[in-house]
Amino acid sequence: MVNEHGGNIYRNDVFYDFSANIDPLGLPENVKNALVNSIDMWDKYPDPYCTELTEKLSAKIGVAPENIVCGNGAADLIYRIIYTFKPKNAVICMPSFSEYEKALNEVGSKIITYNLREENDFIIEEKILNVLDNNVDMLILASPNNPTGKIISPQILEKICRKCSENNIIFLCDECFMDFVKCGKKLTAKNFMNGNVIILKAFTKIYSMAGLRLGYAIFGYAEKADLVRKAGQFWSVSTPAQIAGIAAINEDGYIKSTLEIIEKERNFLQNELLKLNIKFFPSDANFILFKCSLPLDELLLKEKILIRNCGNFKGLNDKFFRIAVRSHDENAALISALRRILNG
Amino acid sequence: MVNEHGGNIYRNDVFYDFSANIDPLGLPENVKNALVNSIDMWDKYPDPYCTELTEKLSAKIGVAPENIVCGNGAADLIYRIIYTFKPKNAVICMPSFSEYEKALNEVGSKIITYNLREENDFIIEEKILNVLDNNVDMLILASPNNPTGKIISPQILEKICRKCSENNIIFLCDECFMDFVKCGKKLTAKNFMNGNVIILKAFTKIYSMAGLRLGYAIFGYAEKADLVRKAGQFWSVSTPAQIAGIAAINEDGYIKSTLEIIEKERNFLQNELLKLNIKFFPSDANFILFKCSLPLDELLLKEKILIRNCGNFKGLNDKFFRIAVRSHDENAALISALRRILNG
Repeated sequence: MVNEHGGNIYRNDVFYDFSANIDPLGLPENVKNALVNSIDMWDKYPDPYCTELTEKLSAKIGVAPENIVCGNGAADLIYRIIYTFKPKNAVICMPSFSEYEKALNEVGSKIITYNLREENDFIIEEKILNVLDNNVDMLILASPNNPTGKIISPQILEKICRKCSENNIIFLCDECFMDFVKCGKKLTAKNFMNGNVIILKAFTKIYSMAGLRLGYAIFGYAEKADLVRKAGQFWSVSTPAQIAGIAAINEDGYIKSTLEIIEKERNFLQNELLKLNIKFFPSDANFILFKCSLPLDELLLKEKILIRNCGNFKGLNDKFFRIAVRSHDENAALISALRRILNG
Repeated sequence: MVNEHGGNIYRNDVFYDFSANIDPLGLPENVKNALVNSIDMWDKYPDPYCTELTEKLSAKIGVAPENIVCGNGAADLIYRIIYTFKPKNAVICMPSFSEYEKALNEVGSKIITYNLREENDFIIEEKILNVLDNNVDMLILASPNNPTGKIISPQILEKICRKCSENNIIFLCDECFMDFVKCGKKLTAKNFMNGNVIILKAFTKIYSMAGLRLGYAIFGYAEKADLVRKAGQFWSVSTPAQIAGIAAINEDGYIKSTLEIIEKERNFLQNELLKLNIKFFPSDANFILFKCSLPLDELLLKEKILIRNCGNFKGLNDKFFRIAVRSHDENAALISALRRILNG
């Protein structure tokens, strides 16, 4: 049974959801308070320019406001970026988030696939540079990559950024899960920024506000940001999303707790998978890809536990599964259920 | 001073906003309660299929769920519909909502303009049929039209729907303001539905939830609906928007009160404009277009009243202004300010 993406808790009877890669801490309390207190403003049109949110983001991340574009979730920005630049030839890697390919198909791009190799734990290798010639208009990679959980090494990332600049390739680097990576600041493409680089970020995951839809993109060149800002509708980011983003932005304690829990619980889950003799791919992120020949998603759903069957990721098959790193109690419940299934 | 659209209260010091055409009654109380009570669900991804909202809408409007597509505001659907069908040749009328032209430009459509005539109060005349030959792929009209406030007469609408079917023209009929029209049910394109007709509707305006972003489209053919549903990102409609829509849908008393206040207050405003010797175009909707050679928007902004300068509507110029019909106190304040300006 394959859902198009994870998180489809509305069509399943679910008690634990490991299929969506969201921060296990839930929506921060001060974000909830800000939302409730602003509700009388929600009858008005949202600020189309996301002025306050963009200014706060700018101060936080050290990027000029004109180089930042906010969107209705990071997914909205994937489409707006691709609709804006309409790449004739685009490179994506497989497996990766399927919305890249879907958006590229909507503008008729020719898609060149760089296949990640299972035997090499699906890491992005230096030979990806060979594909980046001047026929290519856009490269889309994720760090950490979904569903493999692997970051791009800074050495290779630097070379990718440089080669994209040299060959005038727009490099969309999806870092929506980078906030869950402990040394993320050393690993981000921000360190190798140039006019061709666009970094995609989300509030959705790290601040646990997937239902509110909020993402942003950081552009090396403000001119490119401006084109994307003007693509699509005028009011894409709702007022509650803007309010939530403004309230979340300085929740440094929440981020610190998240990083601690993710590292500890990812270690717990990976150790338990090892004990269960399940082949997993060591993750840098808040989710883990593993392999099992049993239909684990169906078997776990009988216990009201939802995990992600990766059968619809190109380059994988339905022997691959992805689980989010959740709170300890949830993770322990998942491991118990897996133990029952495998030993039963 | 021309804002791209109305409602830009974030960049102006404003006490009264007549520039956005939103229900003057504000967000219904039961919608606010439903929002606050659901906040703990907003960390999860929204239901990508808007299942409950679509089912409730289906029951309410008597259209099968598979013929309904929800969006992040009606504006989101304008883009998704145009991105899906990518019309080579599209007919729009002028003046009208500028997002139609903007979206068509993004897919490279050739735009054929049908000019509404001021001397005829900007109504859509039967001769629009002459433009609708089989070179045309899409026709976009609004009823009532923004900013003119005029409905399309049912006699002409029926002929338009038939001719679009005969010539295989997709007819996008924007009825986002039809809920403010007293005999709306007799005037809607739903009465002349065929496989080429798409009707656009909004929760944004009639339920006063512009900040939440929620619209939907009704399709004559479910196959076309399905194409649009799959266009763009998977989670376009936020959880708060879905919750608000579900709570609003049976607010029949709210709609009744809205219709009463709009009719009464539109009459009040039009009578007062008449007394002030301001040329206006009698409106069927919750907003009024009028003409004045003074820079009224700038003069009113000094009194913290925002109205819509229509200078950036193609087919108009900055002698045209649009005001929303608001509550009596607000409308009276606007008229007093106008009187001071004109007689001062």
